[in-house]
Formats: sequence, structure tokens, C-alpha cells
Amino acid sequence: MKRTVYLDMQSREEARALLAEHFSRIETEAELVDVRSCCFRVTAEPIHARFSAPSFHAAAMDGLAVRAEETFGAADYKPLTLSVQDGQAVMINTGHPLPPDKNAVIMIEHVLLADDGQTAIIRSPAYPWQHVRKVGEDIIATELLFPGGHQITPPDIAALITGGCLQIPVRRRPKVVIIPTGSELITLEEALVELPAGKTIESNSAALRGLAEQAGAEVEVTSIISDEYDTIKNSLLEVVRSDARLVIINAGSSAGSADYTANIIAELGEVITHGITIMPGKPTIFGKIEGKPVIGIPGYPVSAVIAMEQFVVPLLANMQGLILPTTESVDAVIARDLPSKAGIEEFRRMVVGRIRQSYIAVPLKKGAGAITTLTRANAMLKIAASSEGEVAKTTGRMRLLVPKKQIDRTILCTGSHDLTLDIWGNLLRRENPSLVLASSHVGSLGGILAIRDGMCHLAGSHLLDPENGSYNISALRQYLPDRAVRLITLVHREQGFIVARGNPKGISSIADLERNEVVFINRQAGSGTRVLLDYQLRENSLDAEDITGYDQDEYTHMAVAVAVLSGKADVGLGIRSAANALELDFIPLVEERYDLIIPAELFATGLVTAALEKIHSSQFRKGVTALGGYSTRETGNEVAFTQ
Amino acid sequence: MKRTVYLDMQSREEARALLAEHFSRIETEAELVDVRSCCFRVTAEPIHARFSAPSFHAAAMDGLAVRAEETFGAADYKPLTLSVQDGQAVMINTGHPLPPDKNAVIMIEHVLLADDGQTAIIRSPAYPWQHVRKVGEDIIATELLFPGGHQITPPDIAALITGGCLQIPVRRRPKVVIIPTGSELITLEEALVELPAGKTIESNSAALRGLAEQAGAEVEVTSIISDEYDTIKNSLLEVVRSDARLVIINAGSSAGSADYTANIIAELGEVITHGITIMPGKPTIFGKIEGKPVIGIPGYPVSAVIAMEQFVVPLLANMQGLILPTTESVDAVIARDLPSKAGIEEFRRMVVGRIRQSYIAVPLKKGAGAITTLTRANAMLKIAASSEGEVAKTTGRMRLLVPKKQIDRTILCTGSHDLTLDIWGNLLRRENPSLVLASSHVGSLGGILAIRDGMCHLAGSHLLDPENGSYNISALRQYLPDRAVRLITLVHREQGFIVARGNPKGISSIADLERNEVVFINRQAGSGTRVLLDYQLRENSLDAEDITGYDQDEYTHMAVAVAVLSGKADVGLGIRSAANALELDFIPLVEERYDLIIPAELFATGLVTAALEKIHSSQFRKGVTALGGYSTRETGNEVAFTQ
Repeated sequence: MKRTVYLDMQSREEARALLAEHFSRIETEAELVDVRSCCFRVTAEPIHARFSAPSFHAAAMDGLAVRAEETFGAADYKPLTLSVQDGQAVMINTGHPLPPDKNAVIMIEHVLLADDGQTAIIRSPAYPWQHVRKVGEDIIATELLFPGGHQITPPDIAALITGGCLQIPVRRRPKVVIIPTGSELITLEEALVELPAGKTIESNSAALRGLAEQAGAEVEVTSIISDEYDTIKNSLLEVVRSDARLVIINAGSSAGSADYTANIIAELGEVITHGITIMPGKPTIFGKIEGKPVIGIPGYPVSAVIAMEQFVVPLLANMQGLILPTTESVDAVIARDLPSKAGIEEFRRMVVGRIRQSYIAVPLKKGAGAITTLTRANAMLKIAASSEGEVAKTTGRMRLLVPKKQIDRTILCTGSHDLTLDIWGNLLRRENPSLVLASSHVGSLGGILAIRDGMCHLAGSHLLDPENGSYNISALRQYLPDRAVRLITLVHREQGFIVARGNPKGISSIADLERNEVVFINRQAGSGTRVLLDYQLRENSLDAEDITGYDQDEYTHMAVAVAVLSGKADVGLGIRSAANALELDFIPLVEERYDLIIPAELFATGLVTAALEKIHSSQFRKGVTALGGYSTRETGNEVAFTQ
Repeated sequence: MKRTVYLDMQSREEARALLAEHFSRIETEAELVDVRSCCFRVTAEPIHARFSAPSFHAAAMDGLAVRAEETFGAADYKPLTLSVQDGQAVMINTGHPLPPDKNAVIMIEHVLLADDGQTAIIRSPAYPWQHVRKVGEDIIATELLFPGGHQITPPDIAALITGGCLQIPVRRRPKVVIIPTGSELITLEEALVELPAGKTIESNSAALRGLAEQAGAEVEVTSIISDEYDTIKNSLLEVVRSDARLVIINAGSSAGSADYTANIIAELGEVITHGITIMPGKPTIFGKIEGKPVIGIPGYPVSAVIAMEQFVVPLLANMQGLILPTTESVDAVIARDLPSKAGIEEFRRMVVGRIRQSYIAVPLKKGAGAITTLTRANAMLKIAASSEGEVAKTTGRMRLLVPKKQIDRTILCTGSHDLTLDIWGNLLRRENPSLVLASSHVGSLGGILAIRDGMCHLAGSHLLDPENGSYNISALRQYLPDRAVRLITLVHREQGFIVARGNPKGISSIADLERNEVVFINRQAGSGTRVLLDYQLRENSLDAEDITGYDQDEYTHMAVAVAVLSGKADVGLGIRSAANALELDFIPLVEERYDLIIPAELFATGLVTAALEKIHSSQFRKGVTALGGYSTRETGNEVAFTQ
């Protein structure tokens, strides 16, 4: 089995320079497009006006057209009467042509018109060409309207039409053909009929298409090509020989046994580079076959998007002479340590929000396989290849993926996971599309520490004090003794055992976790659910060491439920709504209170006030109740306590 | 003749509040769209995943799938051999499903495979679920993918497909119908057949269409409606009763005699406001007919665009829950005084460039009738209603109309006008689409003063010293005694008399200007051409007072040529290429030198170097020669002089 290895990895800058060197002169040809369809296209050559505008001397005001010389001498103390009847003065509207014997306009406001309309009295003279838009004042026939290489905006279209230009020479949109490869791939339509184990829905091509179209390309996606060397080779060659200007072959670009792409490109043409020191995106391939760029885009969705944005989008822009819009960025305090491998430039997906005057950036998971790390992010942090990572509480430059005003209204909610947060977030968004509840799930204790460090607006928590049965207050006293916070109850919820449908292992109490044939799935240390489990184990004199799977943990209730659903575990501790969502069985254990911890100084700010308002709404209670396993009897109440 | 007057003018903020009050809840309904066609649409409701992703436990690396428990004990000093032959270890590629009895993957790099492929040696143990993408690690079936009100990006589409979502509920695009009105209007196609005096090409609807489409609307433009009350009324009512969500009636919105719009809206429904204290854009009308917004957009093209951007675009965004992208802005030093009427918020079109570390903003003309003041601008300055204008050399906030990197590469060229500047600008743009030569025409002396004040990168000048026949040097000694500048010759060019074709007035020498029946058109004071004229008058002992039209001036050679073409004047002094462009006759008078003045400290900067390189090119010489009346014999040479 022959395996490709990465030879001569290039840095991102080196890779870009290679692309520029090989494809610097691949401008698309010109085509003529109707002026009304050329918005945002790029002119292929200088465009000159055919007509002047105005094409005649026109009134610039509503009023009286006169011959200026006949008004000289008019003054406040010496009003002058002009005859409208015999054409000495003519009523005229803005934009209308000046009669040939007139050379000035007097504003209607400065004219006293006789009741019969036959005479007009003026009290000051007009100067020649006053309030007249002269021929060519806007555009002179033959003058340059736009140079070549200019991106046409909506007002530009009005100028082109005014200048008499009907067919506009613009750069043709480059045609991009995307070839998805992979024997494991099926289409969404096929998956909706049946999604067999081992099959993955092909989704990259749609994201790549969107990015290419955004960069002005015309895109075609071929059907999925299976992982057979000759099939891929023949398909690729056919596309290269079509009218495609750029070919994307998706996946098969890493060094696995079925990753033929680099070998095929080498056979048909030239591999310019294979392997770039970025992450995600390392296995990107640049190739050239019969003079055309052939880009091997990696298979992991985040890798695919980053490779596309970093290399293909700029190349497509160059082909058309497009200037890509500037992306916004802000400096933000990084909420957690972000270790990173030296020698690799890493793109970390972040959630950024503004807490008072500072931007705070909370990192999302690293994995290139999780598209949701990109879709949940609102910013991207580049960690330089020379760096071994970023340290918590230092500042980094975040490239924004959404408008800054949305960043300014993003509520950072860090802490315990609960499904009602989604309902809350939906209601906020419905109220105002830029109001975003961004929750990251680090457990109750993680949330309290984020509050301590000023890294979130609010934190969800359900930490039981086994001593007195209270929730959260003891933890706040312990971890935030000097920090004024407010405690607002979000919900009460049922915790219990999530088991497969029909409860095949017959779990009925916590003692069953010690049974040999029962595999447990745990929650991470610091989560309220883990605290609850450990408390229940102690109460029942059970030993964690006797529980198979105690050392396997997940970060959310839903992940626990999925572990049970997928057979990875037989039982986990979690909330009823998670079991309900996946139609699993649930054995209730306790009811607990889930509160929001809010720094006192943020409590009355607009963002938090807007957010809290929503949990008092009947829509919120209705949505929560529908999930099952919740009570809203104290929802929105403040918990009184002394720190 | 009944004339509308503006009652109760509103400020821009008041007008916006009125719009919000009347049309706050006009969200478009939801429609289902194929996931591959929903890019940049806004979700109409929360979207939940149907499938988990991965939907099976999958290898996260290329390598060996094993049961972790069977690898315990492996170490460097104690290699462990696993059997591939009987399935104890299985070769696996990234993304492929883990065999049911396996729970970990060992990276291929850490495996020593026997030559026959039957056994594999490992030197460290695997932990359970190592390098495995577990079911639901990215997406868990039923989980919230996107809240309602979310604008879908290309990566979002991949997430939706991965989550099994085929039909996506999104807000319908609002349909906008634009009604162009005006008896003076004809279509571009009609104009290309014949453009009669008094007729204007209808161009606003195309710009308004582009802006509305950019804001996510579907747009229909009706045919042009003539200025008859009942015709307009019937057309408007028909459109209001169609599936339009918003109706734009273009023009007829000011207070002229044929401006029926406000009266018609009042008759059919309600005028919310008429007249807003902005300029351009004052005559904007907000109306409501049968519950639908009807917006009267002013007729001047710049007014139309500003009213559209300020009021209609935000309303269209609200209908769809779209967040409009943030516009960039920079603080820039204003190059000239900008007086402005108090009580009116004024939008001034500006050309901004960066000179060393400072942004400099050069104002364009004020007139709302000139669309080119908008298309030549790269930034907009708002002068507050409370202000009487801006003072030169103070700083103002410029909203950018182009990407900032283009502003950073804009070369401010202020001074005398010459047609070869366009050829130069075209060549620069072809080299690099963000390299812009922005020339403003203020005459040679104006350019020298702009250099003195640091308001431009370079200035074109052709100031004759009558004492010694030299160009520019004497003026530099007089006006810039303390400023180090370099002087580079651009071209030599013929100056002479521009006259109508066939020279009907028989102009042959400067003495003819004094003839009674000859009307002259002058250039503005401070222009090199004016200096030349005055010098020639003195040389020939002629008196300016005897020349009809000496006090009428224009700012460019082309404007002089147009004045002659339109019959406004019989003769003007100007360059041969301007006469050639409009096919007029030309009587040569002198050849003069046109130089570029460049501050010494900017001479070696990247921007100026890139620009000067182009004037040495053969393309530049070829283009210049084709214009006629030029010599490039000293083009690009530096003129030696001592200040």
C-alpha cells in the first residue's frame, strides 16, 4: 500500500507566493453585459461616455426662465415686472430644458406671480447661467467614466446609463468546477432515504460553492466520484479539459491510503505544493494540469473552508481584478490558554463578546472535523507558526466573521449546559437579530471561574452543597468571596439516569452502576452533574472505582444521551429533556435548581436587562415546559443570599 | 397652478423613527428553500438537526483501529505485536467507520507494519476512544443548529446539510416595485436611437434596483409613467394592490408644478412625512397606502441614492431580519472649507487618500444632479444639521464607499486638468486594481497651493513665466520657497482656440476675441490656461474688458469644449485633445510644458514610484499620442532647478 508523505511543506505566505507565481496572469476574458446586469462586475477596459449629461441646458430649480441681461437693475426698492404672457419669462420645472433664448432661472420662491399668471415681479437680478445645469455639467461625451478594473456599484450603473453605455465590457466570471470524491460519501437526498453506518453526507461542495460564488465565480459541482484511482483521474482530466478556469478536487488530499489526489495531479501535470503549515488545512494541494489551476482541498469541513478562503478565494478575485472587502477585526482578551504547535499557523474559531469596554474571546473546540466550531464562531484567531500558543488573559487580534455590531450584542454565557438556553437564545434573536446568546459549556464550576475572571456576562450553574441541600450559594461564597454577583433562577429540572429505550439493562437505582455488565458514561469534573453523582455515590456508600466508564466523560447532557444512544455506554446521569430529545428512557433521581450567576456591575446593563426580560415571558415558559422535565415555578426570581 | 410646499420637515432621525413606528412589524413571511440555494438568506425559525454527525464512530486519523484494552502494556522497551491478518487490528482511513469491536485508533506514523502486512508492531498503548470521532461529536440529532433570524453563510450550508436539513425556512425576499415617473424621461434604448433636446435618460431605477437587490429584495421596475395626475395615481394604486411589499415612486417628490406624488399619496392613503432636513434628499416622501409603504424618492440621482440608502435599505433589511454590514470609516483632514447651511444635514462626496500617516479628504462638487460626484467619490462626509460647515485642515469622519485598502492606494492628484491623466490612471489600475489616480481639477495654482498644504501626492501644472518663457519654476519659487519638491515633465501639449466645426466665426488670431459677435468662454483664475490667455492679451495689447464672455469661466478644457459645442460660446482657449475629443476645430497658439510637482519627501514612496513608472511605459506614450496635440519627447524627465 503506497502512502503519500508530505514533502517540503510550505508556509501560508510561501504557498500564496507560489500561487501568484504560477497563476499571476490568468485574468478572465472580457464579455459584454447589459448595463442593468453588470452590478458588482469588474470593467474589462476603460469606459467612456457616449452622451453628455445634461445633454441640454436644463433648469436646476423650479422657477422662471429668463434672459439674465433683461433682469439687470431689479432690486428690492425697484421691483421689475416681466411678461409671462409674451414669453419674456417662462415658468419652468427642474430638469426641463431652458428655452433657447433664455440663460438663467429665478427660483419660484423669489418670484411674485400675478393672479392671472400673465406677469411676474422680481426684486433682484439673475446672473447669466444662474440655476442652470449646463450641457455636460455632469458628464461630457467622450470623457472617461470608469477605468478598466473598476468594480461597478449601483450608482455607477446610473452614471453608465446617463452616459449612454448599454453594453458594458466586464471580466467574465471564472467558472469553477468542484469534484467531490470519496467512496464513503452520499448525497443529502440519499441520506434522507437511508443513512447507512459508514456513510457521510457530502456537504463540503455546498460550502465551497457559496464561497466561490461570493468571490464572483460561476460554480458547477460534479456528482460524487468514488475512491478509485482511474475514476478520479478520468473525471479530473475531463473537467480540466472543459471550460473550467479552476478545478477543485475535494478530499483525497491527505496522506491516507485512498488519498490519490496528489499522485493523480502529478501524473497528469504538476504538483506545485502539497502540504501547507496551517491547521486546519494542512493537506491542501496546489496543482497545474494543462496550464489550469487544480486545487486539492482537504476533506474535513473546517479545513476545506479555511483552505478555500486562504488560497482559492484570492485567486478567483485576482482572475477578475476584484478587490475583496476588508474584514473587520477587534483586539480581544483571550479567555483560556490556547496551546499550539510551533511551526504550524493555527486558525482558532472564537466567540467574541463585549463586556463593558473590553472584548473577550472564548475559544471553541479545535477539531477540523466539526463544522459547528466554524458556524458557532463569530471570529477567527490566527496563532503564528512561531508561537507555541496564546496565554489566557493576553490580548489577540480577532478577525470578525459577523458585523461588529453583532459582536457588541453577543451575550457570553459560560458554564453549565442546559437545553433551555437555546429557547432563551431563540427568543432574544427573534426580538433583535443582532442579539446573540453564545453559550459555551464548561460546567458549573467553569462558569463561576469565568465570572471571577470577567470572561462572561453570565453563567449557568447548578452546584449542590451536600451539607445543606442548597444550590450555588456555597460555591459562590467559596470561589467568589470578593465579587458582587446576583443569582437568578432559570429553571428547576429533573436529573436522572438516561438509558436506552426499553431500559434493556434494567437500571433502577444508582447501585446498578456497579454491576459488571453496565457501562457508565460520566460528566466532566467541575460540572454540577458530576458533583451530584459523587454526592449520590457517597450517600449510597458506592465506590467510583467499581463503576466501569467512570473515567470516560462528556461535556454536555446531550453528549451523554448520544453515548447511550450509540451504545458506547448503557447509562449516564443527565437531565430528562436530553433523554426526551433522543427518545431514550429516563429514571428520575432528583430535582435541582439551575441558576444564572450575573456580575452585579453588569446586571443593569442594556444587554443583560434585555436578556432577563425574555425569561419572564410566557413564550419562554411555554417552550421550556414543552421540553419535559422542567418546572418554571421560580423562573426569573432572584435568590437572596449573603456572600 | 397648485404647488406643494414642505410642511413639518423632519430630521433624518425623526424620519427614521417615523418609518420604524409605521412599519415596525412588516416581516416577510417564511418560505422553504433548498439548502443549496439559501446562502445569505435569513432563517425564519430555529432550525434543528435531523441527523447526528458523525452518525457513526469514525476514525479521526489514518491508522490502525484497535481495542484499546488489548494495547495496554505496550511500551518502547516492550513492543506489542497485533495481528492484522485475523482482525485484531484493522487498517483504517480518516472518516471511515470504526469496526464495532474496536474503540481506538493508533496513528499510522506510530505503527510498524510488517512487509507482508499481516502484523503490526506498536510501542505505546492506546486509550479508549483515542483518535475516534464519536457519534454526535459535531452535531447531535435534534440539537439547535441555528436560531431564527440568522443569516446563513457558506459554512452554515455545510452544517445544515450535515444535519440532514434539506428545506430551509427563510424569510421571503421582499418584493420592491419601482415606478419611474416623468414626461421628460426616455429609456436608454430610445436615447440610443435619438436623444431629443429636453429628454433625459431614465437612469435612477437601475441604481435603486441595485441598492434594493443588495439589501436582499426582489425588484421590478415598471415602464416610465408620464407626468399626468390620473395616470400616476392609477399606476400607483395598481402596484400597491399587487404583491409588492414596498413601492418606490421616483421623482415628482419635490415642490414643482408637476410634482404630484405627495398629493396622490394623500388622496390614496396617508403622507407620513414630506421633506427631510438632509441634502441631497430633502424632497423624500414617506407614505402609506392600504398598509403598504410607498416611498417617494427624489429625482436628482444623488438625492435618489442617498434617500434610498438612508431610509429604504434599512427598512428592507428589517423586513428580513438582515443585519447590514458595518461600513468602514477613517478620520481625515478636510482639504478645503465646506460651508453648509445650518438646519440641514449635508452629505458631501469626498475623495480620500493617505499621505504618509494622514488621511486627506478632498471634496467633490455639491450638486445633487451630478451622479459623477457620487461615482468619483470614495467616501462620504456627513455635516451635522447643527453645523455651518467644516473648516479646511480640521478633521472629519469619512464613511468609506470602497475598501480601505483602496483608499490607502489612492493617489491624490490635484491641480491642472489634462486628458493624459486618464490614460495614466487607466494604466495604473490595470497594473493593480486598487491603485487609483484621483485627479481633481483646481488649476495649476490650486495644485501648487495643495502641495504647499500637504493635501495631495502630486499636482499637474503648466504655469508660464512671461518674463523668461519658463514653466512652473518661477511659480514654485514664489509660492513654495521653503518646500522641497521635484518637477517631472508629463507632456508637451498644444494650446489654442477651440471653435465650432468649420470655424463659422472665422477665428484666426487672438485679436478676433474682441469682435462684437464673438462670445468667448474663459478658464478660471489661477489656471495655467488663464495665465496664458492674459499673457497673450498683454503681448497683443488687447483689453479683457472688450471680450464678451471673459467673465464666464469653466474649470476644465473639456468643459470649455462643451461650451463651444453647445453654442454657449464661440471660442475658448484650450488643448487640442479636448477639441479632438468633441470633433471641434482647433487653431493652435503655442506649445507648452505640463509638469508634475511632487513633494520631495513623497518622491520615493511606493505609491509615487509605482505611478511614475507608468509614465515611462510605451503604452503611456502610445495612448497620449493617439489623443493628438501632445509630444512625449521629454515625458518622465526631471526638470532641474534651484528653488
